[in-house]
Formats: sequence, structure tokens, C-alpha cells
Amino acid sequence: MSDSPLPCVDDVLAAAARIAAHACVTPVLRSRTIDAMTGATVFFKAEHLQRSGAFKFRGACNAVWALDEEQARRGVVTHSSGNHGAALALAARTRGIACHVVVPEGAVAAKLANIGRHGATLWRCDASIAAREAMCAQVQAETGATLVHPYTDPRVIAGQATAALELLHAADGLDVMVVPVGGGGLAAGTRLALQTATPGVDLILAEPLGAADTARSLAAGERRIDFTPDTLCDGLRGTLGVPNFALLHGASQVITVADADTVAAMRVIWQVLKQVVEPSSAIALAAIFAEPAPFAGKRVGVVLSGGNVDLDALPWGVA
Amino acid sequence: MSDSPLPCVDDVLAAAARIAAHACVTPVLRSRTIDAMTGATVFFKAEHLQRSGAFKFRGACNAVWALDEEQARRGVVTHSSGNHGAALALAARTRGIACHVVVPEGAVAAKLANIGRHGATLWRCDASIAAREAMCAQVQAETGATLVHPYTDPRVIAGQATAALELLHAADGLDVMVVPVGGGGLAAGTRLALQTATPGVDLILAEPLGAADTARSLAAGERRIDFTPDTLCDGLRGTLGVPNFALLHGASQVITVADADTVAAMRVIWQVLKQVVEPSSAIALAAIFAEPAPFAGKRVGVVLSGGNVDLDALPWGVA
Repeated sequence: MSDSPLPCVDDVLAAAARIAAHACVTPVLRSRTIDAMTGATVFFKAEHLQRSGAFKFRGACNAVWALDEEQARRGVVTHSSGNHGAALALAARTRGIACHVVVPEGAVAAKLANIGRHGATLWRCDASIAAREAMCAQVQAETGATLVHPYTDPRVIAGQATAALELLHAADGLDVMVVPVGGGGLAAGTRLALQTATPGVDLILAEPLGAADTARSLAAGERRIDFTPDTLCDGLRGTLGVPNFALLHGASQVITVADADTVAAMRVIWQVLKQVVEPSSAIALAAIFAEPAPFAGKRVGVVLSGGNVDLDALPWGVA
Repeated sequence: MSDSPLPCVDDVLAAAARIAAHACVTPVLRSRTIDAMTGATVFFKAEHLQRSGAFKFRGACNAVWALDEEQARRGVVTHSSGNHGAALALAARTRGIACHVVVPEGAVAAKLANIGRHGATLWRCDASIAAREAMCAQVQAETGATLVHPYTDPRVIAGQATAALELLHAADGLDVMVVPVGGGGLAAGTRLALQTATPGVDLILAEPLGAADTARSLAAGERRIDFTPDTLCDGLRGTLGVPNFALLHGASQVITVADADTVAAMRVIWQVLKQVVEPSSAIALAAIFAEPAPFAGKRVGVVLSGGNVDLDALPWGVA
């Protein structure tokens, strides 16, 4: 899949049509209090209310329903113990096909249970990337399943783009959109979706300081992915993919955010918006708080990417 | 105010018109997962997304905007350190009038800050009911402010009714509605709103086992309010009011719920619906889990009453 062509705007429109029967059109939330805090007019696209609890369902659903009958019969496979794994499992179930998920030793039990709940087959392997890729290849060879990469697959990128597409339609006249970036599936998809907007809408990516490969890559003009992630934003530890870099380079800027600021923003979202979002979502609001200048007086779209958080291990000190 | 006439359906319709410019039409949330868990089709009216974070804004807003000019000039007063106090403060601000809130010693600092944030004047007194009523009378005498009782005021009851009215319109063909009961403002209002529904909609009240005066009162056919509340549902510790009893008697049934079951339901709402609600809200879903028979296969409306929860003191064990 690494030589896949880049997705384009037509692929995004096709994805929107393809997933319409399965994905939710999530609401757009507003808050007078947060507007006052930011000095901006903020529109929150509530993807934590998407099926499977994250925008990931969009890309997974598009990938699953883009398969031809023969491919579908053999199922899909991925290696993700996080939101993409659960999303692909649920997407496969909407089409009634097999889903195989390769999970590393040490993955969080609650997340594995979530994947299993949607009927996927779990394949365990060592925690290394090499072990995961080898197991994936083995499952592909044994089953003929199609690999659906969490963020480089062009069908996944086109599917993720539909969140921004809906936000553009729901909130007229946006000036700028802010989304989190990890591997870059949502970020690259959003870049594609914004190509449909007239006049243009700026794209700002929010990235953890402890996993700032996108900031370094875009600054250097080439992928700089040699790093060890150190962030509690567990959805943003992936390294920027090749097609993702190609779509984002020259067309977006990055605000890097310290985890403490992300946690503070997450508290604001829980307390004021009353929404349970995970740190990897809250980072977008944290970026606005951290660098308010580009947003002052603007109409700002924010994608709240997911809400799959461990309620027993909240990142603030709890009495 | 204790001799006020009972509000009627026309008062509810008037309240809906009166508060329309100020209150939110809150969304109705659905979840396939919770439908599967309950064996019912559940429509959640998201009043935790109401202004001030609770349905209480509806009643307070109706009371404030029902005042004539001369009354309004002298402001409003109440004794509530909880959601009603904050709601009345915000409602008064929408009309630009004074709001006095009598708060007992020992009230939670975060809640007082919330009331003060909306511009109300705080009057401190001893914690006893007698001290609060005396201070309220003193403020009335000094300022001429109108007392707005948290749940017996007919304008408050009519205002609270608008939540159920909106839910009836948003979710066609409901069979039954479940709301929490404390002092009975929301419960009595909902009873009024349901009088507009054809065919009829049953009303079931959810009450903490440790503050089950409504269950006892409705069973006895007269108010039985001699008890000391023992529940973590801090919004439901009030005793059933006189007009509230009159409106509810013979027209509703009560399911009493143990706090542990309420906490479990609250976790489901946070985890599955991704909504931050307080225990006093979650009790409605807990009632369905506790006694599923009256809801099986039915279309069930639930009012999620508020979301003002202390994130530093969650009621489940947190690592």
C-alpha cells in the first residue's frame, strides 16, 4: 500500500457518499465561555460522538466499503491496538466481513476488549514494529485479507476528510481549522477537504511537543521521523506517513503543545462543554490557548477527534 | 410564594415562548449501545448542555422574565448554593437585574465561584434552614427583591416543563419519560408537559434510596418529608414541595435507586455517550437498569438534568 497514489478531492466526495449510510453526521458544539476564553468564535466538530468513539470510523468505513466483492470476501487486517483497530472492526461488521487486528503484547486490555466487542479476530505479537509488520504479512498471506493502514491508506485519508467537509458545511465562513496530527490521516484528509472551500481556510495542526515529527518534517521540507514519542496523547505517537507529508507540506503550519497544556484544555472541555474527550483531541484547543494570535477574532473550526479515555486513569491529579 | 396557584399547561406554553430568546434548545442524544443494554429505545434530552449547565436555567429564566418592570427593578433573591443559584444569577444577568443568593456556611467553593461569576451578590449565613430563610427575608426586606424558590415557585415549575416539551417534539411517539426527583420542580413540570401529549406518555420518577421522600409521599397520599437525606446525588436532597406533590400525586410512579447503581450508570453515560453528567442526572438511566420491565421495547425519554460535577472528586475509585 505504500506506493498508493495520493487521494484527491474527488476521493473525498466519493467517501462522503460511501459512508453516509453508516457513519454519523456528528454535531457541531458551541460555547460562549470558550469563545470568551479564546477571543475567537469556535466550532467544535464532535467526532468523539462518531461511531466507535472517534473520527477513525470514517476512514475505516470508507476503506471497507471501497473493496470489491472479491476483496471483501477475504476481509481486512490492520495493526492498531487503538482507535483505528476498533473502528476497522466496527466498519467490517457493517459490511459483514472478517476483520483481523494484530495487537502487540502490553496493549491496554480495555482497548483490546473494545476491538473484540466488535467481532474482530485478535492476533498477538511482540511489541516491536517489525514483529507487528511480520504478523500482519502472515495474516495477509493466510487469509488474503486487505491491509488497511491506520493513516497512509488513501481510502483512509479520504474518509477522515469527511469530518472537515461536514464542519465546513455546518459552520459557514470559517477562517481557520485546527486538527491534531499524529500519523497525519486526519490532518492530510482535512487539507484535502479544505480545497473545496472558497474563500480559503487556513489549516493549523496541533502536535505534542514530545512527538513533534510533523513540525520538524514540515520545517525541514522532508520527513524527519527518527524520534521516540514521549507524550500522553496516545493517539498522536505515530510518525507522519509518506502520503500524509506530501499532502501537508507547504500547506499547513504546526503549533506544538506541552502535555500539561493539553491536560488543562481537556479539563476545560470536560467542565465547560461537558464532553468526554481524550488528550489527543483536547490538544487542538490547547494549541489555541498556547498561541492565540492566529485565532483572535476569527471563526475557528476544531475537530474533537475522539473520546476513548480511560476513566480510571485521568491525567489530572484526582483526590 | 407558598400560596401560589398551581401552574397549568398554558403557563408551560407561555414559559416556552418567554425563554426562547435566552435558553438553548438542547440536543437529543441516542446510543445504539445503550439501547442494547436497556432493551429500549432511549432518547436523552441533554440539559447538561443547557446554559449554566443544568435545566435549572429554564425555570429561573422564566421567573426572571415574568416579572413586571417594577418588580424587575428590585431584583431577585434565592437561597441555593447549587445549580438553581447559578441559574438564577445567569437569568438575572440576561435581563440586567440584580440577583441575591443566600449561601450557607460550608457551601462548596467551586459552586459559589460559579454563582459569583454570573454577577450575583452572595449573602452568607449559618447552614440551618431557619438561618437561610431568615437571611432571605432580610434581603427581601432590604432590597424589595422577589423570592424565586428553587422548585415550588409556579414560574419555575412551568419553566422546567419546557425541557420535556422539547423532548416530546424531538422524539415522536414516546411511551414513557424518566426524570430525577428531588424537590420536584422538574418532575412536576414534566407532568404538566406530558398533558400536551396524545396519546399519553407515562411518567416515572427516579429518586435516591437515601432521599426517598417522594416515593413515600406518593405512596401515603400525603407529603412525608421528615427525613435526613443520605445520598451523593447533591441535586436531589431537597424535600418534595407542596405544589410539586399536588401535581405529581396519582400521576406518576417512583423507582428508588441505590447510589452505587447511580454511579455505575454515570460511568456508562461518560464512557458510551461521552457526556459529563452529574450523579443527579445519571439516576434516570440507573432507574431503567434497576427495573427494566416498564421500559422493555418502549420508546423512553430521559432528561439528563445537569453536568456540574466536581472533576476532582469523582464518585468512582480512581487510580
